[in-house]
Amino acid sequence: MASNNAASEEAQVRQRVASWAKALRAKDVDGLMSHYAQEIVVFDLAPPLELKGVVAYRKNWTDWFATFQGPVGYEIRDLDVATAGDVTFCRSLNRITGTRTTGENSDAWVRATVGFRKVGGIWIITHEHFSVPINMETFQGALDVKP
Amino acid sequence: MASNNAASEEAQVRQRVASWAKALRAKDVDGLMSHYAQEIVVFDLAPPLELKGVVAYRKNWTDWFATFQGPVGYEIRDLDVATAGDVTFCRSLNRITGTRTTGENSDAWVRATVGFRKVGGIWIITHEHFSVPINMETFQGALDVKP
Repeated sequence: MASNNAASEEAQVRQRVASWAKALRAKDVDGLMSHYAQEIVVFDLAPPLELKGVVAYRKNWTDWFATFQGPVGYEIRDLDVATAGDVTFCRSLNRITGTRTTGENSDAWVRATVGFRKVGGIWIITHEHFSVPINMETFQGALDVKP
Repeated sequence: MASNNAASEEAQVRQRVASWAKALRAKDVDGLMSHYAQEIVVFDLAPPLELKGVVAYRKNWTDWFATFQGPVGYEIRDLDVATAGDVTFCRSLNRITGTRTTGENSDAWVRATVGFRKVGGIWIITHEHFSVPINMETFQGALDVKP
């Protein structure tokens, strides 16, 4: 029973990650935000060091979506889920592709670690950490590294 | 009882984070490695995108410690712990200070997200994610951002 429950919880988390990514690809800000806790703490690709709360985070996503022409390509690879009780963390390598309003084609892999809590029977995201590694000689972000 | 247990588990995790940081400051590679699962997956400050297993990670830490003269300063701020059953994730803002063998003084804040599993009654780290944000215009790592 216990392992069946764990498998069922993991399946629920994977569904939430899939619906999150679907909203992202569609640039559906409301759909995306429905996955987040009010008091989410984000370590995002761009400064500041941390971003707190859904109001600030909604603005971030809205501004970012506006830099793309048409939909955003978003692939989630090697998703690993650790879940027990009302706590889950996931990690994955995520590929972002798309054409910017500047005409530039983006294609970058980022590392994602996501923390969930189960609240009222639903897994919600309380913490996201997205990053690229940086070259320690030049401090330049490595946007061309691939898995 | 449940909340007492959760408080007790959180205290155990905080102790492990403290002993991890103590080993780091002392450049004690064995002490540091005793906190990690064999199959740890790391999203580190520097490339590659991900690093797998304790053999590779031990080399990383050893090489990094060798770039410092004397001990490494390491402060952990705003540590938040989410724990249930045998799964925990933490986030914090960590400040790294010290004098490099080049004579340069380092002082940088990094974001840390750490995943634990409880194995044989002990919390061990199965995933670490360290990063700095990057400026999205220049792609330069922001090593001067402060909390």
